[in-house]
Amino acid sequence: MTAMSRSNSTPSRVADPPAASVRIVDVRERAASLRSDIENAVISFAEMDTSLVAVVSSVERDGRPLVGYGFASNGRYAQGGILRDRLIPRILRAPPEELVDGTGENLDPHRVWDVMMANEKPGGHGERSVAVGALDMAVWDLVAKIGDQPLYRLLAERHGDGRPDERVFVYAAGGYYWPGRPVADLVDEVRRYLDLGYTHAKIKIGAAPLEEDLARIEAVLEVVGSAERLAVDANGRFDLPTALEYARALEPYGLMWYEEPGDPLDFELLREVAAAYREPLATGENLFSRHDTRNLLRYGGLRATSDVIQVDPSLSYGVVEYLRVLETLREHGWSPRRCIPHGGHQLTLHLAAALHLGGNESYPGVFQPIGGFADDAVIEGGYVRLDEEPGIGIERKAPLYRIFREMTA
Amino acid sequence: MTAMSRSNSTPSRVADPPAASVRIVDVRERAASLRSDIENAVISFAEMDTSLVAVVSSVERDGRPLVGYGFASNGRYAQGGILRDRLIPRILRAPPEELVDGTGENLDPHRVWDVMMANEKPGGHGERSVAVGALDMAVWDLVAKIGDQPLYRLLAERHGDGRPDERVFVYAAGGYYWPGRPVADLVDEVRRYLDLGYTHAKIKIGAAPLEEDLARIEAVLEVVGSAERLAVDANGRFDLPTALEYARALEPYGLMWYEEPGDPLDFELLREVAAAYREPLATGENLFSRHDTRNLLRYGGLRATSDVIQVDPSLSYGVVEYLRVLETLREHGWSPRRCIPHGGHQLTLHLAAALHLGGNESYPGVFQPIGGFADDAVIEGGYVRLDEEPGIGIERKAPLYRIFREMTA
Repeated sequence: MTAMSRSNSTPSRVADPPAASVRIVDVRERAASLRSDIENAVISFAEMDTSLVAVVSSVERDGRPLVGYGFASNGRYAQGGILRDRLIPRILRAPPEELVDGTGENLDPHRVWDVMMANEKPGGHGERSVAVGALDMAVWDLVAKIGDQPLYRLLAERHGDGRPDERVFVYAAGGYYWPGRPVADLVDEVRRYLDLGYTHAKIKIGAAPLEEDLARIEAVLEVVGSAERLAVDANGRFDLPTALEYARALEPYGLMWYEEPGDPLDFELLREVAAAYREPLATGENLFSRHDTRNLLRYGGLRATSDVIQVDPSLSYGVVEYLRVLETLREHGWSPRRCIPHGGHQLTLHLAAALHLGGNESYPGVFQPIGGFADDAVIEGGYVRLDEEPGIGIERKAPLYRIFREMTA
Repeated sequence: MTAMSRSNSTPSRVADPPAASVRIVDVRERAASLRSDIENAVISFAEMDTSLVAVVSSVERDGRPLVGYGFASNGRYAQGGILRDRLIPRILRAPPEELVDGTGENLDPHRVWDVMMANEKPGGHGERSVAVGALDMAVWDLVAKIGDQPLYRLLAERHGDGRPDERVFVYAAGGYYWPGRPVADLVDEVRRYLDLGYTHAKIKIGAAPLEEDLARIEAVLEVVGSAERLAVDANGRFDLPTALEYARALEPYGLMWYEEPGDPLDFELLREVAAAYREPLATGENLFSRHDTRNLLRYGGLRATSDVIQVDPSLSYGVVEYLRVLETLREHGWSPRRCIPHGGHQLTLHLAAALHLGGNESYPGVFQPIGGFADDAVIEGGYVRLDEEPGIGIERKAPLYRIFREMTA
């Protein structure tokens, strides 16, 4: 008999685990292309895809089952194998009582997470973290829909101070390379972001020689107006001498941040760059667990006063693990305001509003169908407001919602 | 025009890249169950499986194509999704010239590796590392077969001193928990290992209370005869206080090693255990890249004189990456003799003999069909000898070879 098993000899029924009045009826997944002609300093996105996940519940609303939707951000590919072979069977095989909260009337995302991760060894945080992230997102979307709340309100009540931010800072990430691209075209791109309502932008560096990158930066600075409105991203390409050479060349500008100078796990390189570079650094989009984030904080030499942590919950075991990442940050003296997650998608927008993060990435127009926010979301003065759609609000992102509807038709 | 493109204007043909007289015709994969009733301190192996990979070449020998075989060790599940969605298509799409060595008559495993890893972002070393490991193993098996050499001789010539070890130390890993298992049964298990010719054994700890684990250890010590012949493995389960409590209790025995006390990425915990525990420690089976191994060496407080690194090449991007792991170890002052890889399979046996590792794990009778060595391999005085079968020698492991034959029939 385990702690979870039911007992008929208990005099009061209060101690019994709740019967599950909500069940997960089905979980569907498919890959969706994020194909794009962009390139960063390390990879091409021509073959990039992501996983879409739909969790179908037994709860009916307006004659149709409530369904939770999730996806696997961008940059690490679809995870159909791990979803189909391990995670989905574990959830569908689990007794419904193991997945619900104390009322039995809604799922408990933390318990669903434990079921997904049963019989998984520690370490090796990649791919699996992406598959769990997509499924965890769909579970939170469903839980908020069952509760008839937008996710940011639910998260603020359960895991924040109950008072979500009214609006979230977003910056426009782009400035990718492609063969033969003239600087004037890069400048036009950033100008379009400003026209859309963004105030801050990020461009790639490291796939061109330093002099050429500096010319790109200076041309874009003319448009954004001030250096603290422009970040640059090396995508982990540099060895230590190159990372330091760029640090020396970039420091006088006083940029918004210098992102991922070296390999994401080379904390020693980062520590040396941090010691040599007084301006803000940013990293974390290629760290996929609280354990890896803790090592970044322990060894990377980052400064809680100015540097930026970019862990993307959709690639990193989802919201359940991101709450642990934030706890790890707090233990090391970091405010959640230092977090501006990678990904440019709706999940991070909810997390940012609910838990007072520093903001959110945005890739205007790319990584469709998952990139960006609600179709009618307006960027004003570099901020976006959330709406009152229950769940994550994929229903207000028509092209993406259409695919999810097809998956569950 | 890239550096790889052919030029008709070159006066001499010497500078031309070689035409590929060997091609990869097909790559097949399937999952194979490693189901077992064993449990370690963290997971059950009831659902464990692995990927089998067969690389079919254009080279014919005795009227049949030469085929390379690989698998994904144990503990991290089959990787069919990543193999089918990303790695295999990249290899089959690549121009044959990109995959061959300077003669054009054999594959270059390093170039095949680069093709597999094209457009993969840095970091996130798990799952992908397992899929690449299986495929890389098959490529090395094929390369050695085309060269008509056992893999350990080829590796010793190309990457060692040309003089492989004649025999490799192996220890019997077992001593798993299962519900209700009496200590007498554990003792019988270890006695069977000694009867098979093993001299050293390893048992699990950490799923029972400390007192019970000490009773298990003392019972097994009676059989193995001396403490330096018995290792214990906590499978990453302990928090720092428990890890230190076990360290204090274990130190007086002077065991062969105390393995993976805490989470594999908690290098700070390991450093504290190393500071408190004078006897050998072992870890690494849940680190899957040279980057993670480097962090272990930088931060884990391990001692190059006595501790043991257990990175499993089959789970960690294969032989190509393992050569980089060994280079990282050398840079930190470690001898390859301090490496005793996880996995208990034929690939690590070849690597151990070729590159003078300290030995090899072995799980007598479990993790079939991939576990263990050639069917007629004899363990004598704790050592096993390799044979002269070309490649890895899966042809001499009949039950496994039968599955591979079916895959390529």
